[in-house]
Amino acid sequence: MTYDPDNIFAKILRDEIPSTRVYEDDETLAFMDIMPRVDGHLLVIPKTPCRNLLDATPEQLSAVIATTQKLAKAAQKAMEAQGVTIQQFNEAAGGQEVFHLHFHVLPRHEGVKPRAPGQMGDKDAIAAHAEAIRAALAG
Amino acid sequence: MTYDPDNIFAKILRDEIPSTRVYEDDETLAFMDIMPRVDGHLLVIPKTPCRNLLDATPEQLSAVIATTQKLAKAAQKAMEAQGVTIQQFNEAAGGQEVFHLHFHVLPRHEGVKPRAPGQMGDKDAIAAHAEAIRAALAG
Repeated sequence: MTYDPDNIFAKILRDEIPSTRVYEDDETLAFMDIMPRVDGHLLVIPKTPCRNLLDATPEQLSAVIATTQKLAKAAQKAMEAQGVTIQQFNEAAGGQEVFHLHFHVLPRHEGVKPRAPGQMGDKDAIAAHAEAIRAALAG
Repeated sequence: MTYDPDNIFAKILRDEIPSTRVYEDDETLAFMDIMPRVDGHLLVIPKTPCRNLLDATPEQLSAVIATTQKLAKAAQKAMEAQGVTIQQFNEAAGGQEVFHLHFHVLPRHEGVKPRAPGQMGDKDAIAAHAEAIRAALAG
């Protein structure tokens, strides 16, 4: 399997299409999912190319899981959630839709089921959740 | 949140209860899920205590994600799957049932939905899938 440099997340990394960024460091980027299955749903990706878990380097994996942990804690705090669900999909059969490695971070509340996938979120709500997550990271 | 040293996975690590192990190294263990949502469903855990992603050390995370990658590739090959889904649950609200950090590795086939959770798997089938995964790791 090869890496397509024109996948959506590659374009987000190059700022060719907009995204709501909440965190970045030298190796990773975190931004809000535009089709959030729960409030505060965000994605963590490496800045360097790889298709998914199956072709990632040890360095990419270590960096991405460290940022995933950081953002899981921040999103849980920001959304006043009681838990966090992490999902990571590989190849179409595994649920992958964008072929640049990404970890989903979903803050979870007791008794609240995720919404069905594929529904665009409200832009203002996503912006507000992003701001709360940035504040949690700063505090 | 604290770590309960008598959780089921801690007992598996101490060999106080049986498990079907497929891989281990100094830092991590992989074994078959006894309630497999798909054929070949396995779990990867650190050998040292931590409750989940929220309290894991960087060393635990790096080791566990590296083993998760290794087992994802092996399980995909062994089960002749076209993809892999990774799930990781934190706290009860996030879907966690055993409070020792674990990553679920689910080999996925096109058009095959995971079974409902909470159903015990067939012991002989699980043993056969484990043997195939061990062979894929060796080959």
